[in-house]
Parts: sequence; structure tokens; C-alpha cells
Amino acid sequence: MTKTYEPLQSVRWDNDELILLDQTRLPEQTEFLILQDVQQVWDAIERLKVRGAPAIGITAAYGVYVAIRDFAAATVDELLVEVQKQADYLATSRPTAVNLFWALDRMVRRAKAAAVQGESMTGIKQILLSEAQDIQAEDEAVCRAIGEHALTLFSDGIGLLTHCNAGGLATAKYGTATAPMYLAHEKGWNIKVFADETRPVLQGARLTAYELQQAGIDVTLICDNMAAKVMSNGWVQAVIVGTDRVAANGDVANKIGTYGLAVLARAHNIPFYVAAPLSSIDIKTPTGKEIPIEEREADEIIRGLGRQVAPADIKVYNPAFDVTPHEYVTAIITEKGIVRAPYTDNLQALFQK
Amino acid sequence: MTKTYEPLQSVRWDNDELILLDQTRLPEQTEFLILQDVQQVWDAIERLKVRGAPAIGITAAYGVYVAIRDFAAATVDELLVEVQKQADYLATSRPTAVNLFWALDRMVRRAKAAAVQGESMTGIKQILLSEAQDIQAEDEAVCRAIGEHALTLFSDGIGLLTHCNAGGLATAKYGTATAPMYLAHEKGWNIKVFADETRPVLQGARLTAYELQQAGIDVTLICDNMAAKVMSNGWVQAVIVGTDRVAANGDVANKIGTYGLAVLARAHNIPFYVAAPLSSIDIKTPTGKEIPIEEREADEIIRGLGRQVAPADIKVYNPAFDVTPHEYVTAIITEKGIVRAPYTDNLQALFQK
Repeated sequence: MTKTYEPLQSVRWDNDELILLDQTRLPEQTEFLILQDVQQVWDAIERLKVRGAPAIGITAAYGVYVAIRDFAAATVDELLVEVQKQADYLATSRPTAVNLFWALDRMVRRAKAAAVQGESMTGIKQILLSEAQDIQAEDEAVCRAIGEHALTLFSDGIGLLTHCNAGGLATAKYGTATAPMYLAHEKGWNIKVFADETRPVLQGARLTAYELQQAGIDVTLICDNMAAKVMSNGWVQAVIVGTDRVAANGDVANKIGTYGLAVLARAHNIPFYVAAPLSSIDIKTPTGKEIPIEEREADEIIRGLGRQVAPADIKVYNPAFDVTPHEYVTAIITEKGIVRAPYTDNLQALFQK
Repeated sequence: MTKTYEPLQSVRWDNDELILLDQTRLPEQTEFLILQDVQQVWDAIERLKVRGAPAIGITAAYGVYVAIRDFAAATVDELLVEVQKQADYLATSRPTAVNLFWALDRMVRRAKAAAVQGESMTGIKQILLSEAQDIQAEDEAVCRAIGEHALTLFSDGIGLLTHCNAGGLATAKYGTATAPMYLAHEKGWNIKVFADETRPVLQGARLTAYELQQAGIDVTLICDNMAAKVMSNGWVQAVIVGTDRVAANGDVANKIGTYGLAVLARAHNIPFYVAAPLSSIDIKTPTGKEIPIEEREADEIIRGLGRQVAPADIKVYNPAFDVTPHEYVTAIITEKGIVRAPYTDNLQALFQK
């Protein structure tokens, strides 16, 4: 069953229904799914209809509630066993998604705590829905706070360049690197965003360009190799990207191409900002050198776009990420504020606040 | 009628036949066409089976000979009229290709000069074949000379990075930026080439990676946004690219993405070389600012690869070229030698030799 909703939000709980934007249909079709049972939720996660660590965690959390809301347990203990069973089931939908496990674990712990506090079965079910809504609200608040801090660095009329998708589609709302764009748009600012298409998987073309366009933000799609020309044209006054992991010294791992952008930004005297929720800052990793870089299959480049574009057996180098040394990072924007060099001290301080 | 030949050469005259590599079939299929009449030659040019200014000129020159070799003229004058008529016809195959007109004009002038010198009809026909072969041989000699000069900058074991296709497929043989790669391979050097795929039209993936692989050169295909990582990995010791036009001050217009590469090369202390036949150096254009940059249609980015990869109506910026300021150019490699800064004086001197 499908309906079309406005405005765009990748996961939402509305009118007692779990509603999911089917990201496998983007950018051709904007289609929302109503997930009516746990099997549909499992399926949506497994089939990549939802993507982005926070959005997956939120979907799974709602999934636990969807799974048990109509479960007729004889006792509270029986309900808790069912909660655990359904959470274990949902955890099998994407076996490497840390955020998925974190959200499911939080749901199970909340149910147990409620039982200890003497909540009724109806009460526990209601608490599980609230917990999922809290997970979503917290993520939205983190993104909004990042956006507000970032906005203090920008002004009306600014041109921004971004890479990959650190956008609202991956989170509850706002995204990370896109958060200041949405907030600037809310304020009525005139901003102009350039989105790198982000080869090989084209998250910039398929997702970032799409979601900004849907929100009515002035976005222009470019190929990755056009970023330098856009900078030399004088069209952007800042680069802002998301991150997969920030090391303790401020080195930033992010989608392949980010490092080159940072070097180009430096050469054009353009600040290079990284939007990073605290959850992505890994104080236990000393530097970017310790962050492993996944290499992906050749076919993503040779055939990833619908037709073969290179010799079938050509040798390919396809690193999924790169590391931008902290010297190139003008500032790291977190929900707790803007961090600048020296990063080792200032990131550490963030966690002691 | 099709046959497969070795080694790869995009245009050749062999055993009294004009043989053309069908570049529209690349990289999936290596197929050679035997062009038996002028209509087939016209068709091959018009349908982009041959591409690259020098290769088009060479094909058209042979086309003139193919068109008249069996023409039974009553007089030399009648033959000359036919030569002109067939050249005019071939000129309509690609109305903007300057090199095509240049080659056809040279063929017509050669026929007329031979007639003035009292050559027989058989003699004139033979002279036209020789002229086409000369055009091809001259182009090959220019490319080889560029390759030999470039090779003095490199050494066994070097890693090279290139962008787009300034390769043998576009010329008689060797190409420009690829010429030192072929010559190094001839010498038995161990070289490693990284080829940018070159979005949006993917000439690097479709042509450069293909032709180097065919020649047995160690080539690795990367996406454009991976070049910075390849540089920081320490895998390349020089960047070498071709050019569409070099201005009098040494500014270099080339495929979009070249300028960014030059900036990245500078940041990594890697020399940035431009392979430029004298025919591409335009002393009448003072600087890169006077070189117009063509903007191409959005669909090349949105749908150029077989499936739609961005919203259908997304705004796109798609410049076909960029200009690399001469400050970023370590040297310009021509058939007459290697030119370094100050370019204004040293390029000028090249034409006074």
C-alpha cells in the first residue's frame, strides 16, 4: 500500500502508522510505504529501502513497537520475551549496521526497565512507542543543533558545495551537512548549493540533489571533477561535508573525493567544514591512519550506471573512503558547538563537557 | 564487412584497403571496418566511428583517394573536378571539424599541383594516396616526437596519471599524452598508469583505459574524485594530459577536471605536464580568459550512462572544458621540444625556430 506525503521525511510515525520513503525508487519516484507488520519493516531494512545509520536505527525502533503492539501476552514476562525475540529478528536485517543494534538494544532495555518499574503490558507497549519517538526526536535535535551552529558561520546569499549525502534522508530530519541548508531556507535566506554527483555510487546526484530540490532549495548538480571550476568561478564561499568517522586528532574519514575537495578548497581560500555528530567522533582512534579504508568491487565503476563504460576486465582502484588530514579542516561542527584546531585538545574537551 | 586486426590502430591503409576501428563499439567490442567507397567513409565520420581531430583528417584524406581511385575520367581536368566534388562531399560529414577541412583542402591542392606539373591521371591518383599517407605519417611523427621528449622527463618504474583521452585512438598512432606511455612500453620500462574515468562522457574509461590495456600497458581505472587519494598514496610521480588549446601565455584549455588535477598535483609536489602539438598552440589567443568554455546539456550528466541517476529536472552545470592557469603547468611538451616558463617568450620562440 502506498501514499504520497509532504514534506519529505524518510521515516515518520503518523496517525499510528510507520511511514517510510522508499529510497530504492529515488530519484525517479517519491513513494512512501506504510509498514504494517514486522516482516515489512525487516524487509524494508534488508532491501535498502531505508539507508543512513540514524534512519535505520529509528525504523528498527519503531519496528519493535509494530511487532508487539498487537501481541496478546498472558504475562509481562511473556511480553518481554516477545520484545527480545522481535528485536533479535530485526537485528538480522542488516548484520553490519551498528546503529541498528544500538537502537534495538535500547528498546529492549527500556521494556525491561518499565517492567521492573511495575508497568502494565499496555503501559510497556506505550513506553516502547515513546522510546522510538525519543530516538527519532533526539536525532532530529542533534541535526538541528549542528545546523544552528553551522549557520553562525554562513550568511544570506552564500554559495555552498557539498559531497555525497549527509542529508535528511539518512537521518530523522535535516541531515548533518545539509542541516544548515534547511535552516537557512527556513529563515528565508537565499542560498545556492552545488552538489557533487559523487562517483561511483552517485549519492550526490540520486539523494542530495533530490532532497534539496524537493525542499525548494536552489541546488545545482555537478560532476565531481567540476568542483575546482565552480570554486575558481567564485560561486562557493564554503564547503561542508558529513563524515563516517572523525579521529581524535581531527582527521576526517568520509566518502571518496572528500580529501581532494579539501585540498581544492584550501587552494581557493574557501573554508572546509565537517558536520559531525558526537556519535561519529571516535576519540579511541588516534589519527586517520588507523581508520581502515574499504575497497569495493570494480563493477561499481565499470557497470554501476546501467551500461558497461569500460573494458570488462580492466583493473580498477575503488576506495570507498578517504581521510582528510586535520590541517585541511577549518572547523568540525557538532551538536555541542564548533570545534577548531588544536583538535586533539578541543575534541577531547567536548566529551568532558 | 568486418575483421579483427592487431595491433590497435584507429585508421590504417593496409593491403590497398582503408581500415577503421569502429570507436562506437568501444569498449565492449574491438571491431575494424573496411571502408570500400566514399559513402562508407562519409558515414564513418558522420556517425562518430572515428573521433579525434587528427584521426578524422587522416580518414577523410584517404576517403578522397577511395572516392576517385576507380573514377574513369576522360581528362585530367575532369579528374580534378571529381576530386573537388568528393572533397566537398566529405566536408559535409562533420561540419565543425577544422582538421577535416584542412586535410581535404590539402588533398585538393596536391591534386592541382600534380596536374600543373603534368602528371598523368594514374600519377595523380597515386600522388593522392601518397599525400594521405604523408598526412598520417606526419601526425605519427609529431606524436612520436612528443613522446620522445616526454620520455626524457620520466624513468623506468614511474607512475603516471592522465585525464580524458589524448590517446592513440584520436591520432595516427601514439596519441599525445599517451605517447610517452607507448614509448616507455616499447623500451620495456615498467610503468603504471592511472586513468581518470573523466565524467560526464567517460573518455578515460571508454578510450584511454581501453587502448592502454590493448597495448599491454599496466593501467588502472579510477573515478575522477580518486585522483587526490592516488596522489597521496604516493603512486604517481607525474600527471600528463593533452590539450584542446594552449594560449600564448601558457594557459591550457582541456577537458573539464584538468584544472582540479593541476591544483592537486601542485599540492602533492607532483609535476603537471601538458602534451601539445604545435597545432594546438594558439599564439593569437593571449590568455586562457579568451578561450570560450562550451557548456553542454544537462542530460549528459543526468542520463548519460544508460539510466537516470538524478531528478529529471534538476539544475545542472556542465562545462565541457576548463582552463589551467600557466602557473600550474610544469612544462608543455611539443614535437619541437619541452617548453617551460616564462611561457609567453618560450612558446613564441618555438614558432620562430
